[in-house]
Amino acid sequence: MYGPDLTFLGVDRCDVTEPESYVDADVMIIGAPFDGGTSNRPGTRFGPMAMRKACYLAHDGSRPSLALRVDALRDLRVYDAGDVEMFGGDIERSLNALEQVVAAVAAAGVIPVILGGDHSIALPDATGVAHRFGYGRVSMVHFDAHADTGDMDFGSLYGHGQPMRRLIESGAVRGDRFLQIGLRGYWPGPPVLDWMAEQRMRSYEMTEIVARGLNECLTEAFAIAVDDCDGVFLSVDVDVVDPGMAPGTGTPEPGGLTTRELLDAVRRCCYELPVVGVDVVEVSPPYDHADVTAFLGNRVVLEALSAIARRRKGPRGTHDNPS
Amino acid sequence: MYGPDLTFLGVDRCDVTEPESYVDADVMIIGAPFDGGTSNRPGTRFGPMAMRKACYLAHDGSRPSLALRVDALRDLRVYDAGDVEMFGGDIERSLNALEQVVAAVAAAGVIPVILGGDHSIALPDATGVAHRFGYGRVSMVHFDAHADTGDMDFGSLYGHGQPMRRLIESGAVRGDRFLQIGLRGYWPGPPVLDWMAEQRMRSYEMTEIVARGLNECLTEAFAIAVDDCDGVFLSVDVDVVDPGMAPGTGTPEPGGLTTRELLDAVRRCCYELPVVGVDVVEVSPPYDHADVTAFLGNRVVLEALSAIARRRKGPRGTHDNPS
Amino acid sequence: MYGPDLTFLGVDRCDVTEPESYVDADVMIIGAPFDGGTSNRPGTRFGPMAMRKACYLAHDGSRPSLALRVDALRDLRVYDAGDVEMFGGDIERSLNALEQVVAAVAAAGVIPVILGGDHSIALPDATGVAHRFGYGRVSMVHFDAHADTGDMDFGSLYGHGQPMRRLIESGAVRGDRFLQIGLRGYWPGPPVLDWMAEQRMRSYEMTEIVARGLNECLTEAFAIAVDDCDGVFLSVDVDVVDPGMAPGTGTPEPGGLTTRELLDAVRRCCYELPVVGVDVVEVSPPYDHADVTAFLGNRVVLEALSAIARRRKGPRGTHDNPS
Amino acid sequence: MYGPDLTFLGVDRCDVTEPESYVDADVMIIGAPFDGGTSNRPGTRFGPMAMRKACYLAHDGSRPSLALRVDALRDLRVYDAGDVEMFGGDIERSLNALEQVVAAVAAAGVIPVILGGDHSIALPDATGVAHRFGYGRVSMVHFDAHADTGDMDFGSLYGHGQPMRRLIESGAVRGDRFLQIGLRGYWPGPPVLDWMAEQRMRSYEMTEIVARGLNECLTEAFAIAVDDCDGVFLSVDVDVVDPGMAPGTGTPEPGGLTTRELLDAVRRCCYELPVVGVDVVEVSPPYDHADVTAFLGNRVVLEALSAIARRRKGPRGTHDNPS
Amino acid sequence: MYGPDLTFLGVDRCDVTEPESYVDADVMIIGAPFDGGTSNRPGTRFGPMAMRKACYLAHDGSRPSLALRVDALRDLRVYDAGDVEMFGGDIERSLNALEQVVAAVAAAGVIPVILGGDHSIALPDATGVAHRFGYGRVSMVHFDAHADTGDMDFGSLYGHGQPMRRLIESGAVRGDRFLQIGLRGYWPGPPVLDWMAEQRMRSYEMTEIVARGLNECLTEAFAIAVDDCDGVFLSVDVDVVDPGMAPGTGTPEPGGLTTRELLDAVRRCCYELPVVGVDVVEVSPPYDHADVTAFLGNRVVLEALSAIARRRKGPRGTHDNPS
Amino acid sequence: MYGPDLTFLGVDRCDVTEPESYVDADVMIIGAPFDGGTSNRPGTRFGPMAMRKACYLAHDGSRPSLALRVDALRDLRVYDAGDVEMFGGDIERSLNALEQVVAAVAAAGVIPVILGGDHSIALPDATGVAHRFGYGRVSMVHFDAHADTGDMDFGSLYGHGQPMRRLIESGAVRGDRFLQIGLRGYWPGPPVLDWMAEQRMRSYEMTEIVARGLNECLTEAFAIAVDDCDGVFLSVDVDVVDPGMAPGTGTPEPGGLTTRELLDAVRRCCYELPVVGVDVVEVSPPYDHADVTAFLGNRVVLEALSAIARRRKGPRGTHDNPS
Repeated sequence: MYGPDLTFLGVDRCDVTEPESYVDADVMIIGAPFDGGTSNRPGTRFGPMAMRKACYLAHDGSRPSLALRVDALRDLRVYDAGDVEMFGGDIERSLNALEQVVAAVAAAGVIPVILGGDHSIALPDATGVAHRFGYGRVSMVHFDAHADTGDMDFGSLYGHGQPMRRLIESGAVRGDRFLQIGLRGYWPGPPVLDWMAEQRMRSYEMTEIVARGLNECLTEAFAIAVDDCDGVFLSVDVDVVDPGMAPGTGTPEPGGLTTRELLDAVRRCCYELPVVGVDVVEVSPPYDHADVTAFLGNRVVLEALSAIARRRKGPRGTHDNPS
Repeated sequence: MYGPDLTFLGVDRCDVTEPESYVDADVMIIGAPFDGGTSNRPGTRFGPMAMRKACYLAHDGSRPSLALRVDALRDLRVYDAGDVEMFGGDIERSLNALEQVVAAVAAAGVIPVILGGDHSIALPDATGVAHRFGYGRVSMVHFDAHADTGDMDFGSLYGHGQPMRRLIESGAVRGDRFLQIGLRGYWPGPPVLDWMAEQRMRSYEMTEIVARGLNECLTEAFAIAVDDCDGVFLSVDVDVVDPGMAPGTGTPEPGGLTTRELLDAVRRCCYELPVVGVDVVEVSPPYDHADVTAFLGNRVVLEALSAIARRRKGPRGTHDNPS
Repeated sequence: MYGPDLTFLGVDRCDVTEPESYVDADVMIIGAPFDGGTSNRPGTRFGPMAMRKACYLAHDGSRPSLALRVDALRDLRVYDAGDVEMFGGDIERSLNALEQVVAAVAAAGVIPVILGGDHSIALPDATGVAHRFGYGRVSMVHFDAHADTGDMDFGSLYGHGQPMRRLIESGAVRGDRFLQIGLRGYWPGPPVLDWMAEQRMRSYEMTEIVARGLNECLTEAFAIAVDDCDGVFLSVDVDVVDPGMAPGTGTPEPGGLTTRELLDAVRRCCYELPVVGVDVVEVSPPYDHADVTAFLGNRVVLEALSAIARRRKGPRGTHDNPS
Repeated sequence: MYGPDLTFLGVDRCDVTEPESYVDADVMIIGAPFDGGTSNRPGTRFGPMAMRKACYLAHDGSRPSLALRVDALRDLRVYDAGDVEMFGGDIERSLNALEQVVAAVAAAGVIPVILGGDHSIALPDATGVAHRFGYGRVSMVHFDAHADTGDMDFGSLYGHGQPMRRLIESGAVRGDRFLQIGLRGYWPGPPVLDWMAEQRMRSYEMTEIVARGLNECLTEAFAIAVDDCDGVFLSVDVDVVDPGMAPGTGTPEPGGLTTRELLDAVRRCCYELPVVGVDVVEVSPPYDHADVTAFLGNRVVLEALSAIARRRKGPRGTHDNPS
Repeated sequence: MYGPDLTFLGVDRCDVTEPESYVDADVMIIGAPFDGGTSNRPGTRFGPMAMRKACYLAHDGSRPSLALRVDALRDLRVYDAGDVEMFGGDIERSLNALEQVVAAVAAAGVIPVILGGDHSIALPDATGVAHRFGYGRVSMVHFDAHADTGDMDFGSLYGHGQPMRRLIESGAVRGDRFLQIGLRGYWPGPPVLDWMAEQRMRSYEMTEIVARGLNECLTEAFAIAVDDCDGVFLSVDVDVVDPGMAPGTGTPEPGGLTTRELLDAVRRCCYELPVVGVDVVEVSPPYDHADVTAFLGNRVVLEALSAIARRRKGPRGTHDNPS
Repeated sequence: MYGPDLTFLGVDRCDVTEPESYVDADVMIIGAPFDGGTSNRPGTRFGPMAMRKACYLAHDGSRPSLALRVDALRDLRVYDAGDVEMFGGDIERSLNALEQVVAAVAAAGVIPVILGGDHSIALPDATGVAHRFGYGRVSMVHFDAHADTGDMDFGSLYGHGQPMRRLIESGAVRGDRFLQIGLRGYWPGPPVLDWMAEQRMRSYEMTEIVARGLNECLTEAFAIAVDDCDGVFLSVDVDVVDPGMAPGTGTPEPGGLTTRELLDAVRRCCYELPVVGVDVVEVSPPYDHADVTAFLGNRVVLEALSAIARRRKGPRGTHDNPS
């Protein structure tokens, strides 16, 4: 939508309005260049372009994972549908447009991977997937510094602080299948926390993660996620990482995960769980330095896809015979 | 709206909903922290805060102009009404909220000086003033790299590329009293240019300015501006200055004015013409360096206010006895 | 002192020269905008302003801690006294001015929280508190990459490399109640180290922290701190964090703590110990990127205040009934 | 070559090895992503990508010039051949590869427009064109802060300080048809200046330009350029502009042209002279800020193309009927 | 003083305490790495190092001027005395130390060229020179955005806003031989302006410069400067240039000269007048971008030295035989 | 080679062509200012200068290690030979020049410490050392995000992605004594991995490091390194650290070590192993922020030298009597 027309690391382009253009797809990259829902620093409209091109290797549609010994962009059939037109000044129209695209992709049996954009897009992203699997049948694994469960902000029901509330209110995702990882800081206050408790959401705050270890928390969370659900939506807000390591984001909250921790957690999630949709949000290039946050966003996507590919292919072999 | 509550260089705060709080006002600063109308780089939501505080001198509500020998912040009664709440994700609601504030201020006989925000706010700014003086009774002097006369963009009638068209269509400003200064580059194309010609708008492109000299162009433009009009609205898009000197903006077009030229032109405009409203727009802090563009925006406001003060006080004296 | 007049996240303003303006205070924020003591990169004069405003949430004087379930800015009565006037070119006069303010605040039974400024301010900060509690009755917990125990620098006894020596020499703080955490790198050399050993200071270098674990070191240090002392002064030099995560500082020494470790350590310190004064120093905005170091400084203050509030309120409840 | 595959503002792609893919071409954009010849700051390898995409308007292969009332990307048939593979570590092989491409394009009757890259590429660029028109039949108009007429540097005959000497030595361009505009600073010294004088090169230094006016200098230079030559090669080193306005370059020399002056000069050159080849060099994105230098490079290309289009179409009409 | 030991572009080092080390000197470079007098943004302590090394050519102690056909670093005997130790926290001691060095150098018949540092150093710089030539016998040509004639600031008589007042009060420089060029903005107010008028200082504000032309103003000023004075001190505050072109400074005031204008004015000053001392101040690297302001400072020094060399050598020859 | 002539933190200069100038040397610093082998972002040509000067302490040739209680720059005799002239445009000539210097230094019984430069220099670095100790007699400990074992790139056998392959092919280093630590990401693909396996290289990927712990991996690797080899070459690519903490590098791969981990690992390596050569590469200042990556490079060198000094001196004493 902004600037030149390019695909994620050079994968093939498709046209989401022409189903025959992606009939063999496993995964569809969708750009959501939107920051109309941000409460503070904007810039995530440039997130999709930044994540698509943040790589120093040739943009040749191939990325063999050293760790997993799969080439996600070749072992899976991955297309890039380009950007959904999302006008920053009209959030409702924009989110609706995105929901329709995601729903169409999911209906075709394809895993949508949406590149945000601010986190308000999680509402259409997860709703679009829920249209296919049924409301309440997809659980949510949500990496974030913030709960994003606010009610109203600036007089609007829609924005990047509210999508998770809207998803639970609509029934698209069950509150007791909502797993949040990495929360910290000074938001929200008691009324919202009470609402969250009523929904039986489970939030792994950084305090708990430090005390118990991230892996133990993930194991517990994953067990909940697959209990009486048919799929998992993975929503990664890049601000779950410490702003010292990932400065290019809008609402930086110190004290987060390291990038290594996030990448390993995303790998586990997509390898161990039946992931049916992914979004990576809140990468804001104007606040980035030397593209390090865009690189991180790009690698989160690749890590997710590589783990999905590995899951389909079965466990990796031994060190001597890895694939 | 974003961050701490501060006023323009420390002038007094007022509450626009309580007219008694500014009963003696000459000028009212109004923040329009909005970038929901931007077609490319966002960030102008932080323009009002940046322009209010970009000064290395004490924030004491006093700024004696060396050139004009007035202290605009003391010779005029200047208040700061703070920011209008403008949610980026809902442009129509936001522009309406701003229009009501500007109209109220103008109706009270006060000159509104609006700190943008993107240029979509020129529509409510000039319309709000037109409510008081009558549609077609206020001419427009418009410094900009772009004509901002587009029809639709991203499916919306509102945005930072269209406000001037909407103003003429509504009759708030007459097309033949629309003076544009500094246009250049590769927009708009023939259909929009034809529409502009039909409206009898007068655009002084950089090519003409270089050929004839800026002062001669201004003299000609000012004569048109006061012909059968009761007041002048001055709209300054900071991108009229070359992006090499003012990088903190959203749609940079090389080949513009120098900052010195802009300041001198603003001075002439506010000293020679009956200015009834001002906006300074498109300062985008995330793209700025060392705050130089914010400093420029601050100085454009001060230059305008100083010239208004000088106009009211009468011509400056001789060098030996200047005030 | 520099720029607009704003308070820490919008808490109430008070006037330190008018005791009645803060008669009910628990905590007083004091700005020390000073970098006249820096031996290398300056810029900490802008630290107070940067830490006061570095937050993406509304500046409304409320910050409910997710981890501790207190709202430090409401559960405690927190005022902001603004900045002490500290002229960079006259360090002795500046430090004296600050000492008087801190002493007055402490004498009123209020916890001073000083926002630096370079680390030379630790001398007046801790001395000011010692005036109330008695020389030698307040121990020091000092997070830093550097020992700050130099003797002379640039021919001056005062500077950001010497405050800890001056404090011990004067008797304000006992050498054997001086706990340093995070030291590393290539300073000081043997003569200063010998002096430190003579004073029986206890320095937990990064090497020891990595080997034993930060929590074990803290537990040991805290036991010393409360042994025959009546209060603890907490001095946090933001350069204790690795410069890769907190670049906005003057003397960056690679190999430091993560931000998460610092926040957790500050929380423990203020929750477990009777803290009677705090300073957060060496945040240097000109070297920061995207304000990440300013955000960190802001959160260090909030973490300290939240833990103080929690300590006063008693332990947090269970997960189901947390407050 | 680096990163995603995109064309100049969305014009059509062609394959230079398949002549049928550009049989109707008027102009061919060629990327020369090379900085192996830089004597100081590198980074021009990213110049082609930066100049291709530095525009806030839609990348739709259309750019109607406001000043000239042509749409260069439509009135001319413009293709983008992508980047020539130029390995930074092997300058001779790289320059040869580029020369072959330029020669092939010129031989096909197409105007090559090469996006650099450092200025060492001027040697293959102008030589490639000379292959078609004959050695000594193409004059050179060269905008630059530096003469680029050095003999050896780092033990190599090739580099960004020597191309103009090589061109004259080989006879590709006549020394007395070499017009340099914008020189200043402290290079070269007497031996090289003597050599230049022997070649009867004509250098318009900034001192002369300030004294006589740029337009008068250009008029004189253009007369020389068309005297007994069949075409003109235009070589624009972006460092001819003052580094204060165009910081993204490798060897910044204060005291240069403004961007407005450069754009107007390029326009005159391409409108008044029979330009047969163009290169725009020394845009170095790592040193740029907010892409302002990349924007300038993009506009230099557009200004050149627009003027070529205007020259072919004949003079622009009156203000009322411009095209 | 900060960082490695290097000389201005590689000229020879000397030791100011050993006169025999510079017995043949014409010019002495002296570093004044001081920002203890700044009222706002610090950083000029790094100005000397930045100006010494900001050049892309070999640091070989040779710089042939293209415009003047002299090699200032060879035609003159230029030494670099390194930095005077100036502790930012003690302005009086620091300024005294500098004054002694400058006085010693001037007494030896050498032209001191001081690299600042903030503008408070102009007091010891010009005073040091006055010790040799006599109080009132050296006039001042002062390029600056600000008059620097304040009385007290932060309770101190010394700082970068007051040096010119102190110089006139002490009699070191006569008020009526004080020529200021480039003033603009909103400082000082009437009381200081009245004081300046009483001293019969002559200030060429930007308004006058734009109206009359810079060259005419300089011609007039130069005539005053040499009337009944024996030498001229040239003080260049880099903020006389527009901050859009020279962002690396502490108190940026929009609307200044271009870099080209400053360089030409410095050349005229040093060629036409008997300059006996020079300082270049207020280059602040932390606020610079891509070193453009440091480059400018370096070139101001070279332009001054080249013009001094040219003045000694006599007028340049014709174009064909220039030296 | 670029800019001023300065030595590593002020150690003595020597001339590598005059052996008598370093007859007592233990260690020689050698600059390799080269980025002609980079496949993506350049800038490492400025790495040597940046690492030499990145320190806030006096550049006095002394650095007492707090952790190890040695002063490497004094306990060892360390010289700086300056930069090898390496023209970016001719990689083969440049690498040969470096190899000769390293070989000469090693032949003199001195430990060469080479400051890169891109990683293509590892080929001449380790080969130069192998000339003295014998091909296959020096093992390699290699910290990196990338294996650097590619075959051809851009048609060249030499570049920063291939040096490790060339070293094994030539026999300079045995494949089964090649220990790689920190690999991750999406390169290389199966053919190169197969080749690596055939050579019996041992790569500790981040996945293994996270699972087993860095110290356990190092212990294992070190045992291999000293098995039937006479010395160890330590090659540290700064991109082994996470780009969030070390952004100033050319091919950033998220998910790396922390700076603390790298420093501790380098210390162990140089203390426990007979290190005979070191290089520190891929520090790219144009992409750095606030010099944090240059500081890290400087500290890696100091950590290595301090551990070498400690190893020679014998184990450190107790805490009470450390040296």
